[in-house]
Amino acid sequence: MNDRIILAHGSGGRATHQLVEELFYRHLGNELLLQRNDAAVFPAPRTGPGAPAAPRLAMTTDSFVVRPLFFRGGDIGRLAVCGTVNDLATSGATPLYLSLALIIEEGLRIAELERVVASIAAACQEAGVKIITGDTKVVARGQADGLYINTTGIGLVPEGVDLGGEKVRPGDAVIVSGPIGEHGIAVLSEREGIAWETPIRSDCAPLNGLVAQVLATGAEVHCFRDPTRGGLASTLNEVAAQAQVGVVIYEEAIPLSPQVRGACDMLGFDPLYVANEGKMVAFVPRQRAGEVVQAMQKDKYGKGAKIIGETTAQHPGLVVVRTAVGGERILDMPEGELLPRIC
Amino acid sequence: MNDRIILAHGSGGRATHQLVEELFYRHLGNELLLQRNDAAVFPAPRTGPGAPAAPRLAMTTDSFVVRPLFFRGGDIGRLAVCGTVNDLATSGATPLYLSLALIIEEGLRIAELERVVASIAAACQEAGVKIITGDTKVVARGQADGLYINTTGIGLVPEGVDLGGEKVRPGDAVIVSGPIGEHGIAVLSEREGIAWETPIRSDCAPLNGLVAQVLATGAEVHCFRDPTRGGLASTLNEVAAQAQVGVVIYEEAIPLSPQVRGACDMLGFDPLYVANEGKMVAFVPRQRAGEVVQAMQKDKYGKGAKIIGETTAQHPGLVVVRTAVGGERILDMPEGELLPRIC
Repeated sequence: MNDRIILAHGSGGRATHQLVEELFYRHLGNELLLQRNDAAVFPAPRTGPGAPAAPRLAMTTDSFVVRPLFFRGGDIGRLAVCGTVNDLATSGATPLYLSLALIIEEGLRIAELERVVASIAAACQEAGVKIITGDTKVVARGQADGLYINTTGIGLVPEGVDLGGEKVRPGDAVIVSGPIGEHGIAVLSEREGIAWETPIRSDCAPLNGLVAQVLATGAEVHCFRDPTRGGLASTLNEVAAQAQVGVVIYEEAIPLSPQVRGACDMLGFDPLYVANEGKMVAFVPRQRAGEVVQAMQKDKYGKGAKIIGETTAQHPGLVVVRTAVGGERILDMPEGELLPRIC
Repeated sequence: MNDRIILAHGSGGRATHQLVEELFYRHLGNELLLQRNDAAVFPAPRTGPGAPAAPRLAMTTDSFVVRPLFFRGGDIGRLAVCGTVNDLATSGATPLYLSLALIIEEGLRIAELERVVASIAAACQEAGVKIITGDTKVVARGQADGLYINTTGIGLVPEGVDLGGEKVRPGDAVIVSGPIGEHGIAVLSEREGIAWETPIRSDCAPLNGLVAQVLATGAEVHCFRDPTRGGLASTLNEVAAQAQVGVVIYEEAIPLSPQVRGACDMLGFDPLYVANEGKMVAFVPRQRAGEVVQAMQKDKYGKGAKIIGETTAQHPGLVVVRTAVGGERILDMPEGELLPRIC
């Protein structure tokens, strides 16, 4: 490990995982934290020994430092609501309540702040969640960068739903809910002032409705994960390591818009490493996969859902991409930091 | 309102309240958010219509941007745990779980970060809470200021406990759990390199044990509030406005160490406006006040507990300080920002 924090520690890739394991888990580790999923699931506390069994709740937290604050398809406010709603949804939970904490740089226009707050309100309405507690801090000019937002969420896990990376088994189908890479490219384009012929919009969206559609099928989903920082490559590597399975992805099956493909070609990015904010990856026993894809397609944010690969007992912990002509390459956990400040 | 955010918007005083009311409550308002207490209290969700009644939970969030990261009596890590534990405790809740989200500036020494994380672990152990979910973001050098921390907490509200500023009635005694002003002066001294003859330490401490001692007396407490940003003056004004009662404080009864008194004299601060991070204010019917003070004094962080005033039906919404010689002055909500970045 370096002796100082570098940008890569925030990339969601290898350096992030190393920091989390070696520093946070080592000092703070407990059974709930070490579930290693996007949301922690715990039984609601009981008021006393005679009290009835309580439902299970999910809790998750995320800070958002995206720059610029506004971009095509979203803004830091919508992102802050959707990011936390989606992390709750990965546990199968119905998102209920969010906290909202802002660190604002002195000098931010109140009109801009109001646009963000209005966007938060609209995203909450869409996702069916409420902000129930908040905090505002202001730091002097030059000591933050406009606005940072933290949202922390609480959800209710339905009875019988028990998901997690550790539940994935060889023989699962890997499904993604639509085309990848849109969020990262949209934010980067906005920041760098790149104007594409056909504009690329962030996919930023709440996915609790899509997850509910999938759970309503009764199919035994093993794991949901939203491929944000570090992209699909990071998510697949996380699950491969957690479940100790191999993952095989068929390159030609990965949904990708021609715009994002073109932008990635020009900018030199691999779309598999680019962040999404409105996509869900599901690991599902192969025989129910078709049904899950159909359920996703019923949701407005899952029209492009596809099976993109499968898990295998071979090469546990490794993710392999298979090309149309039969070639194979290992898809590594991202190293370094390609796209800072995209969420 | 200004058209840009100013430091005073983060002071916990009048500008903060105005921003919260005019922007956040207007766009995001709902029954739970508009409880206007330090923690939101809500019934744990039920799994279905036939499910048994669920216990009540409390949720609260706080971001910490204190500078410097380490100071006499504490550090940003201990502060982040205690601040959220104490906000939960104000609702009478037993704090259970915290989330931990860090925004780290590139270049922070990992050894410093580890000191903070170890301090978080120690404070969690002392308070009996667990970190169950987390997030790490890194921003480029110069775009944050070392380290910002958000903690969001969940607690269990015991049956029959129902506290809040709106419950305060004329005839309540106002109790403070010990000497005021230590945290703000300790942080300022560290930041400015002021060396006092007798060093002043932050009072940063978890107060859930103290609150439990008080609740165990069975005395009907109306409201707990921890006087952090904006100090005792801000807390008393908040409650006076929320309950529409007058508050009278006896100047000579306010516990204050000679060190803090001296430092405030020299620096030109009124200790009533200086932040505390290990003090609790309680509003309790007068006839049980002695018992509550004694319960506080049983706790290691409540040795200096005292009755400092009372509420009255006169001058609703106003806080008045009465001096030993019979003079009176109005204690206003703080204006502007005297002591930035102390939490």
